[in-house]
Amino acid sequence: MSNIYTETDLLQKEQACPGPAGEGLACEPWPETEVIGSRRPRVDGYERVSGSAVYPSDVVLPGMLYAAVLHCPHANARVKRIDAGRAKKVPGCKALLTGNSPEAGIKWPYADNFEGPLFVSHSRYEGEIVAAAAASSPDEAVDVLRRIEVEYEVLPSVSDERQAQDKEAVKVHPEGNLVSPVQEYQRGDVDQGFSRADVVIEESYRTRALLHTPIELHGCVASWDGERLSIWESTQGVYAVQDTVAKVLNMPKSRVRVIGHYLGGGFGSKLETSKYSIIASILARKTARPVKLFHSREQTFLAMGNRPASTMTLKIGATREGRLTAIEFTGLGASGAYPAGGTSLLDWLAKDMYLCPNCRTSLTDVFINAGPARPFRAPGYPQGSWAVEQAMDALAEKLDLDPIELRLKNFASSSQGREGNPAYTTNGLKECLSRGAEVFGWKEARQRTAQQDKQSRVRQGVGLAAGNWFIGGGRPPSTVLVKLFEDGSVNLNMGASDIGTGTKTIMALIVAEELQVEPDAVQIEHADTGTTQYASASGGSKTVPTEGPAVREAALHLKRQLLSMAAEALKQPLDRLVLKGDSILVQGSPEKRIKVVDLAGLKEQRVIVGIGHKPPNPENKAVTPFGAQFCEVEVDTWTGEVSVLRFVAAHESGRVMDRLTFDSQVIGGVTMGVGLGMTEFRVLDSGGTGKLCNRNWHDYKLPTMLDCPSEIISVAVDLPDQGANITGAKGLGEPVTVPTAAAIANAVYNAVGVRVTETPINPVFLIDKIHLK
Amino acid sequence: MSNIYTETDLLQKEQACPGPAGEGLACEPWPETEVIGSRRPRVDGYERVSGSAVYPSDVVLPGMLYAAVLHCPHANARVKRIDAGRAKKVPGCKALLTGNSPEAGIKWPYADNFEGPLFVSHSRYEGEIVAAAAASSPDEAVDVLRRIEVEYEVLPSVSDERQAQDKEAVKVHPEGNLVSPVQEYQRGDVDQGFSRADVVIEESYRTRALLHTPIELHGCVASWDGERLSIWESTQGVYAVQDTVAKVLNMPKSRVRVIGHYLGGGFGSKLETSKYSIIASILARKTARPVKLFHSREQTFLAMGNRPASTMTLKIGATREGRLTAIEFTGLGASGAYPAGGTSLLDWLAKDMYLCPNCRTSLTDVFINAGPARPFRAPGYPQGSWAVEQAMDALAEKLDLDPIELRLKNFASSSQGREGNPAYTTNGLKECLSRGAEVFGWKEARQRTAQQDKQSRVRQGVGLAAGNWFIGGGRPPSTVLVKLFEDGSVNLNMGASDIGTGTKTIMALIVAEELQVEPDAVQIEHADTGTTQYASASGGSKTVPTEGPAVREAALHLKRQLLSMAAEALKQPLDRLVLKGDSILVQGSPEKRIKVVDLAGLKEQRVIVGIGHKPPNPENKAVTPFGAQFCEVEVDTWTGEVSVLRFVAAHESGRVMDRLTFDSQVIGGVTMGVGLGMTEFRVLDSGGTGKLCNRNWHDYKLPTMLDCPSEIISVAVDLPDQGANITGAKGLGEPVTVPTAAAIANAVYNAVGVRVTETPINPVFLIDKIHLK
Repeated sequence: MSNIYTETDLLQKEQACPGPAGEGLACEPWPETEVIGSRRPRVDGYERVSGSAVYPSDVVLPGMLYAAVLHCPHANARVKRIDAGRAKKVPGCKALLTGNSPEAGIKWPYADNFEGPLFVSHSRYEGEIVAAAAASSPDEAVDVLRRIEVEYEVLPSVSDERQAQDKEAVKVHPEGNLVSPVQEYQRGDVDQGFSRADVVIEESYRTRALLHTPIELHGCVASWDGERLSIWESTQGVYAVQDTVAKVLNMPKSRVRVIGHYLGGGFGSKLETSKYSIIASILARKTARPVKLFHSREQTFLAMGNRPASTMTLKIGATREGRLTAIEFTGLGASGAYPAGGTSLLDWLAKDMYLCPNCRTSLTDVFINAGPARPFRAPGYPQGSWAVEQAMDALAEKLDLDPIELRLKNFASSSQGREGNPAYTTNGLKECLSRGAEVFGWKEARQRTAQQDKQSRVRQGVGLAAGNWFIGGGRPPSTVLVKLFEDGSVNLNMGASDIGTGTKTIMALIVAEELQVEPDAVQIEHADTGTTQYASASGGSKTVPTEGPAVREAALHLKRQLLSMAAEALKQPLDRLVLKGDSILVQGSPEKRIKVVDLAGLKEQRVIVGIGHKPPNPENKAVTPFGAQFCEVEVDTWTGEVSVLRFVAAHESGRVMDRLTFDSQVIGGVTMGVGLGMTEFRVLDSGGTGKLCNRNWHDYKLPTMLDCPSEIISVAVDLPDQGANITGAKGLGEPVTVPTAAAIANAVYNAVGVRVTETPINPVFLIDKIHLK
Repeated sequence: MSNIYTETDLLQKEQACPGPAGEGLACEPWPETEVIGSRRPRVDGYERVSGSAVYPSDVVLPGMLYAAVLHCPHANARVKRIDAGRAKKVPGCKALLTGNSPEAGIKWPYADNFEGPLFVSHSRYEGEIVAAAAASSPDEAVDVLRRIEVEYEVLPSVSDERQAQDKEAVKVHPEGNLVSPVQEYQRGDVDQGFSRADVVIEESYRTRALLHTPIELHGCVASWDGERLSIWESTQGVYAVQDTVAKVLNMPKSRVRVIGHYLGGGFGSKLETSKYSIIASILARKTARPVKLFHSREQTFLAMGNRPASTMTLKIGATREGRLTAIEFTGLGASGAYPAGGTSLLDWLAKDMYLCPNCRTSLTDVFINAGPARPFRAPGYPQGSWAVEQAMDALAEKLDLDPIELRLKNFASSSQGREGNPAYTTNGLKECLSRGAEVFGWKEARQRTAQQDKQSRVRQGVGLAAGNWFIGGGRPPSTVLVKLFEDGSVNLNMGASDIGTGTKTIMALIVAEELQVEPDAVQIEHADTGTTQYASASGGSKTVPTEGPAVREAALHLKRQLLSMAAEALKQPLDRLVLKGDSILVQGSPEKRIKVVDLAGLKEQRVIVGIGHKPPNPENKAVTPFGAQFCEVEVDTWTGEVSVLRFVAAHESGRVMDRLTFDSQVIGGVTMGVGLGMTEFRVLDSGGTGKLCNRNWHDYKLPTMLDCPSEIISVAVDLPDQGANITGAKGLGEPVTVPTAAAIANAVYNAVGVRVTETPINPVFLIDKIHLK
């Protein structure tokens, strides 16, 4: 039970690949670009907006059955008896699975080295699956499940990570509630560091558990042709699903095809494979019919992952000048009922964001009776930011420094060593802070809020927070093809999913830049294990920096073949040739040219194929995106209501690939951060049942338009990262949601002088604190 | 109008590609094989037999409309007026196209350099399309068409190729009825050759027009996503359809995706693209809905191609010893109403099958008012065989030679020059004749029929015929990928269609042989322009010799990468390593080994990709498959009824790749030949209308089980062709149907002494001839 299964692990399991297959492809990022960096609409915008895009949940196959699962309604219970006798007689019932079925022998990998039965006899969380049925219609499937009689022995449960630490607490597993040994990190001498500090800040923080709640539910359609299985799945990574399904069902990968062309949101909850893929496959096999199994919204809330609550303490010491001397961080998180990385990356911002010679962190991950956690957009970082960036704000106040100034005093430029950590390839934090402040009007706004009437009912406040993200450089492996049709148009073939973030668009721009074609005429085949090569799951903000270089390498490999053909046709040395528009020209002799479509080799072979791999990451360098967000709020001191008025989010992720996609990511990230800071939290009944209280979108409050600032300005700090990879781009998807909640909290403090240390910023608690002051 | 569009042209347009991209791949055909040559079931057998295979005609998309076409019911007519006013008001009508529609400006390429409007105002054959409609259901689409009012000026027509030659005949086109200048061929001095002959045979022959009538109708489903068009089409070549559609609709190929995973029969009629693909695409565009347009059986009979009637004269001279001294052949055929190669390859057997120093052929191709011809399994050859092999039979009788002996006297071995023609890589005719004769019991059967009572009502006869096929070596280009998943299982990616002939199975065997995996575990992606590279259309018996070497090359390319990784891991020279089972071994030191799945490079990259191309064909060599078929018939001299009792078909097509597929092809080819010889002919009304009289499977007689011999024995002459390509295989699909009809005619002659010179062997004509004798 010592292994946890987190996004970090998922990513680290993907070792470095040995480098490009093609020779002589080493090249620099583009010195200048034509299409990259411009503002281009999504290449699949029409399909997505018109409704013609076929999401996995849209898939309907002839003769398809509909499946549903019966889940345990208790936070902790033993199945004493399960009787499906009546259920089998329900009209339309085609197949039924319980722990008593022969297929129940299949083992499900809850985490690395942690297997359990597919249908449990002891359910450790509400939402654990105890039975499944396939029927002619979705309603009939539910009818079948209702007729299954289950007798439970309901056991006491624990649903709070703080209580789970108690020795007296209910044990989620017989071995105890500790998921793994406490993780310790240390550099320098922390005690000495604090002794050298002129000022010390110490505070406890907490963030509540959040749910991913993507619009498209979790599920798949499974279909067999003889011994061959095809699965259309709403997933962030088709190869990850293929891997799990092949292993669990003991099949060669060549007999498991996973397709996931579109995805209606994942945010990390669809990085991993779920039991439903196996259950749908078994039901399809039993019935010799395709089976569609999409979970209900409730089941998705219960069992398809969460960003767990975190309890943190942070102590920071600094000199009078504002140099950090020591950081001490402890974090407590809950994996849920199975190992799931409940504290993943919680301490990374504390130990990695600012220069500090002395640092100690400690993480404790416990089991509770709740659905297992899953990676949630920037796992650990928004929580860490909630602590670190509020503490930095408090420190700046104590030191009488502008929060920007304090941060700049403790930031490492790319030419700087980082106390044993690898140096950054680039660090755009300074630009993010300065350009963001300028666009926001930071100085003026600070003056304005300082001078406002402290007795007025409604008060304004401004705040900022910064952030980074640790895997901005992507990671091998990836293998991509680019193909040129005989008419000069292009096909791109990649394994990666576009999880709504614009991957297809960015990759089409790279092909377009290199091969001088129109981006929206690039045909894209992707996210299908039967037709593409390999890509890791899209997550961790690593898709652009992983797939981008592979795509560019494939385009270059293709281009080099074209140039070689032209060199022969024009009787010119290769290095004098350039591809420009639809022709290959001789530099200096523009009259010597040949159209690409007239190249003999292309005419003869009808297609030219370029292949590219993600090259290894630069050695001993950290490829890290940065951001700084500025926020203005208004607090009604009578009601405690906080309105987030506006946001300026300045982000540096290396080269800006497509400005429109960049802005979309920034706006989406801020919105999600508003959810963490202002509206969202999972409520597990603390009155004894441990059951989920807010299991729908009415009770679980996602931020709506009215909760979001009416102005979110995206400031793109475009700094092509020469050291990161041949595109110059770093990851963007995750850093944009890291500082948001902390920035709001700092603005609230600026407005009313109250430090809110637990998410979400709740009017009831806030008003208490305002009045207690 | 001088260009005709035949399979020969289609194939010749595909120029030789410059050779394999990979270096050092030159290798010999396998010295011995493990899976190749065994008897393996089809890898897609389950899907085909269970009904789970999705043929294009099975495709149903959400919101799909159904289209139908209105065709001209006259053999020759002008559209004076067309009024769709009432039709548009039919409930369910979603779109309607006529010659008056704006889209009618699109030009349709009837043949190279021969364009016409999509909807004609002068219809030159019954079945020409004058309007099309899309509606909510198939029935409503037909209702719409019924409401279209068309006023025709019916013109006189010509439907017989012999009449079309007359100067007084109706002119199909204003320029006259000659499709192209008469094609002449000559070698040696034919007049001198006949003067040296001791025996001369001269006879006229005729074969009637046949229809392809595949089980799956002709049609497609077209669907747009914004500017991107996807077409699911029942086609022999997805890239051919992509090419035509992109050209006609003026789109880049990257925006046209054509998918054709299964095909319910084509036989050459689905090599070319038809108007329906364009019409369906336009209707889908107009309605913003997917549109399914599959022709009716009647429309398929009328307009989707035919093997045209041929009128031939053949004169052969030979010495007393049986050496041919001269051949003179004239052929007349009809393309139909547009250039379509009505005489394609009609003379090839006459000029190519046997050694003869002096030969002259002449082909005349005319227009008639009928649907254009299309390639039909071995275009020209079964017709040529009908003449040549009957003449050889007659010559043998005159020379008092066994028909086998006469053929062997005039056959060229591979070491022999062929009077200016390139020498064969191999020639298995001798083995086909000798082994076929042995299995058939030829000598004994000839004796038995010679000794039978000439007065008995029912008489037996035996006959044989031989044949070959000119493109048995395939032809570049083709680009194929083979990919190894990290668990050691394999994916094959090729553009070629499996038109029911077993291409997928053969290619899986090649991969299995080379990479030591189970053939039915090879995942195959094929026949999709969006996911594969390039392959020419499957036809001309060139799929195995074209794709096979490309697939083997890709597997070898992949294997070489694995061996290189193993060489590094085992610290052994590359040339000492072999792949055996799941491991790579060091020859001579079997204890030194590494499992493929343990290779570091595979673990790191997760997939290894091999790429292969069809290499150029051998220079100055003819790669030619051969066959000889032996037949026994029974003739009822009172009724004229002929029963084909048994067939032995001995074929040499280089290496036998899969014995089960080989036998299937042979049995299918003989069955189709029985159709030509015994039951099938298209009837155009000679009473003036020129309309098709047998437009359904009731009136057009395909051979049924009762018409076919109860015993068809396939004799596989397995002679791996070292000179053909790295698989040693030649084409098989077409040669197996070449000699069949002539063999039956020779057997009938053997039984009753009547030479039937016109197909099919018709009881009425036969009894006349028996009684006239």
